[in-house]
Amino acid sequence: MIDTDPKVFHIEALREFSTRVFLHFGCPKEDAAQAADVLACADLRGVDSHGVARLHTYFDMLTLGRINPQPQIKLLHSTLSTANVDGDNGLGLVVGPRANAIAMEMAEKSGSGWVSVQNTNHFGLAGYYVLKAVARHMIGWAMTNSTKLVAPLWGAERMLGTNPIAIAFPGKKEPPIVIDMATSAVAYGKIEMARRSVSSIPSGWVVDSQGRATTNPEDMVEGGALLPLGSDREHGGHKGYCLGIMVDMLSCVLSGANWGPFAPPFALRQEIPQRSVGKGIGHFFGAMRIDGFIDPDVFRTQVDEYIRVFRATKPAPGTNGPLIPGDPERQAEQLRREKGVPLIPPVIEDLRDISAKTGVPLD
Amino acid sequence: MIDTDPKVFHIEALREFSTRVFLHFGCPKEDAAQAADVLACADLRGVDSHGVARLHTYFDMLTLGRINPQPQIKLLHSTLSTANVDGDNGLGLVVGPRANAIAMEMAEKSGSGWVSVQNTNHFGLAGYYVLKAVARHMIGWAMTNSTKLVAPLWGAERMLGTNPIAIAFPGKKEPPIVIDMATSAVAYGKIEMARRSVSSIPSGWVVDSQGRATTNPEDMVEGGALLPLGSDREHGGHKGYCLGIMVDMLSCVLSGANWGPFAPPFALRQEIPQRSVGKGIGHFFGAMRIDGFIDPDVFRTQVDEYIRVFRATKPAPGTNGPLIPGDPERQAEQLRREKGVPLIPPVIEDLRDISAKTGVPLD
Repeated sequence: MIDTDPKVFHIEALREFSTRVFLHFGCPKEDAAQAADVLACADLRGVDSHGVARLHTYFDMLTLGRINPQPQIKLLHSTLSTANVDGDNGLGLVVGPRANAIAMEMAEKSGSGWVSVQNTNHFGLAGYYVLKAVARHMIGWAMTNSTKLVAPLWGAERMLGTNPIAIAFPGKKEPPIVIDMATSAVAYGKIEMARRSVSSIPSGWVVDSQGRATTNPEDMVEGGALLPLGSDREHGGHKGYCLGIMVDMLSCVLSGANWGPFAPPFALRQEIPQRSVGKGIGHFFGAMRIDGFIDPDVFRTQVDEYIRVFRATKPAPGTNGPLIPGDPERQAEQLRREKGVPLIPPVIEDLRDISAKTGVPLD
Repeated sequence: MIDTDPKVFHIEALREFSTRVFLHFGCPKEDAAQAADVLACADLRGVDSHGVARLHTYFDMLTLGRINPQPQIKLLHSTLSTANVDGDNGLGLVVGPRANAIAMEMAEKSGSGWVSVQNTNHFGLAGYYVLKAVARHMIGWAMTNSTKLVAPLWGAERMLGTNPIAIAFPGKKEPPIVIDMATSAVAYGKIEMARRSVSSIPSGWVVDSQGRATTNPEDMVEGGALLPLGSDREHGGHKGYCLGIMVDMLSCVLSGANWGPFAPPFALRQEIPQRSVGKGIGHFFGAMRIDGFIDPDVFRTQVDEYIRVFRATKPAPGTNGPLIPGDPERQAEQLRREKGVPLIPPVIEDLRDISAKTGVPLD
C-alpha cells in the first residue's frame, strides 16, 4: 500500500518547484518567487486546496495563454485612501500581493488604504494577504470573488462564488487572530471527499439542479449548487447569501470585474460564461493602521486578553472548548515546518506531469 | 378580541412621542430628534425589535442615570481616514449618527473614513447608518457589539453579542442593496416568540446551559445561549463565530470599549458583568466614496444590473426566487408609510407607562 500513501515534501522543495514552473512561463523572477510564496503559505498552513494542489491549474491557464505571465499592473484611479488597480490579466498570486501592498502603503500615509482590483485571476489563500498586514502591525482585509458554485437562498442555480472574507488582528504575546472563511456553508472540497468515499453529505450543504435539498454529493456535479453559510431560511441562509453579495460588490462591482455568474472559470473543466460584464475576476484589499484609532500597545494587549478569555470559555460537551480563529492553521504550520508537507498521490501525479512537460525537476 | 389586536400608529405620532420623551430627560432638541429618527426608521422598515418597542429600555436607562442625556462627544484621535470617538456614555442613537457623520466627512476628503467608538450605548438599527451613507452616494458600513447572548462554536456559555454587520451599496434606478444582519443564527426575538406560543424551536438555534443542542426555547432563558450563524461545525458555525469576533475587534478592541462577555447590559433584567475592560459598548462605522474607486455612474448601473440578474435566478421549489438584500424592509416601509405602524399590546402598554411617568401624551 506504499504507493497510495501520501508522500512528504519539504516546503522549500515545493517552493523551488513552483518558482521554476512560473519562471518557465516567462514570469519575471520576483513575480515567480512571489507566486510560489502564496502557494507555499497555503501548503504550510494546511489549506491543501490552495497550495501546490492548484499548481496544475495555473500551469494549464499559462499554457493556454489565458493568464498573462508578464502583466503591467496599473493604478487606474486613487484618492488618499482608496484605489482601483488593473491586474492586466496577470496571476492573482502576483497581482494580489501588489494591490495589497498598495493598500498598506496608503494606510502608512492616510491611516487606512482600500484597493479594488479588476482584470485578475485566482489569488490563492485569502489569509496570506492579511498576514502581510499583520506583519506590518496593521489590521488586514482581503476578499475575492470566484467561479460560480453557490446558489442564493431560494435559488436553484449557481450564481455566486464561494467568495471568501479574510481579516486579521495582531496580538502582542499571543498569535494574531486570523479569520479566513468562505461565505458558503462548506468548501467544495468536502463534496469531492464525500463523492470519493461514496458517502452521503449532511443536509444544508447542497441543493440539486432543481434547487431541492439533497444529501447525495453526486447532485452537486450534476448541476447542483452549494448553499450559502446558514444553509436555509430558518438557519440564516439569507445571511450567507448577503455576505457573498458583499464580497462581490466590493471585489467586482467596485473594481470593474466580472461579478456573480459571470466570473470567468479558473479550471479548464468549468464552462466559460456566455456574457462578460467586466474584466477578469476581482479582489478587494484593506489595511488599517492601529495607531490610526488607538494606542497599538493597548490594542495588542487587549487582543491577548481577548484570546485568553475566549480560550477559557466553558466547553460544550465532547469538545475542548472554542478555538481562536487561526489556531488550526498555526498548528498545521508548526507541524509542517518540522515534518514537511504531505501530498496525496493525485497531487504528486499532477506535479510529475508538470515536471515532465516543463523539464523542471521534482525532488 | 379587539384588545389583543395590534393598534396602528402614524409614524409621525411615534416620532413625536419619542422625541418628547428624550426631551423630557434633558436631551438637547437636535439630539432628541436624532434619536427618535433612528427609532422611527426601524419602525418604518418593519424591524419592530429596534423601534419604539425599545423606548422603554432607553427610558429605564435614562431614568436611572445610566445613560448621559447631554454627552460631550469627543474625537480622541484621528488620521486622514481613521478616527476614534468617545461617546461620553450618551445614547447610541445620538453618538452613532455623530460618529457615522465623521466617517462620511473623512470620506469626502480622503476617499474613505473609518471610525471606532467607545463609551456608547445601543445604537438602534444598524441599517439606519448605512442608509445615511447611501443618501450621500457612498458605500456605508456599520457594526456594533451588544450584551452577551451568543456562545462561540464549542462553547457552553454566552460570550458574544449578536454583533450585527450592515453595509449598503447605492443603485441607480433600482433601490440600494442594504445588508443588515446579526452574526447569530437567529434573533433572540424568535426564541421569545416560540416561548410565548409554547412551541419548540429548530435545532441549531440554541444550546442549553451545558452547551447541549436543544429545541426547547425555555433552555435559552435558563442559562442557554444562541448559536452563531452556521450553528454547528458541520454547517459552518465557526464562521458565524468568526464574524462575531470581527465585529467585536473593530467595534470594541479598536475603540477601547467593553468586548465579548464584558459588554454592559442594555436592559434592566440583564446582569452587570463583574469586570470591565473598557468604556461602554463599541461601534464601528465606515464610508467609502465610490468615485474613490470607479466612475460612480458605471458602478450604479452595474448595481442595477446585478439586482436584475439576481432577481432572474431560477427559483427553488416553493419559493418566488431569491430576494435582494433590503427587499423585505423596503416593502414594510412602503406599507407602513401608507397604513401606519402596527404595535402589539405589550408595546402599547410600555408606551402608556412612559406617557404616565413623563406626562408626554400618546395619541
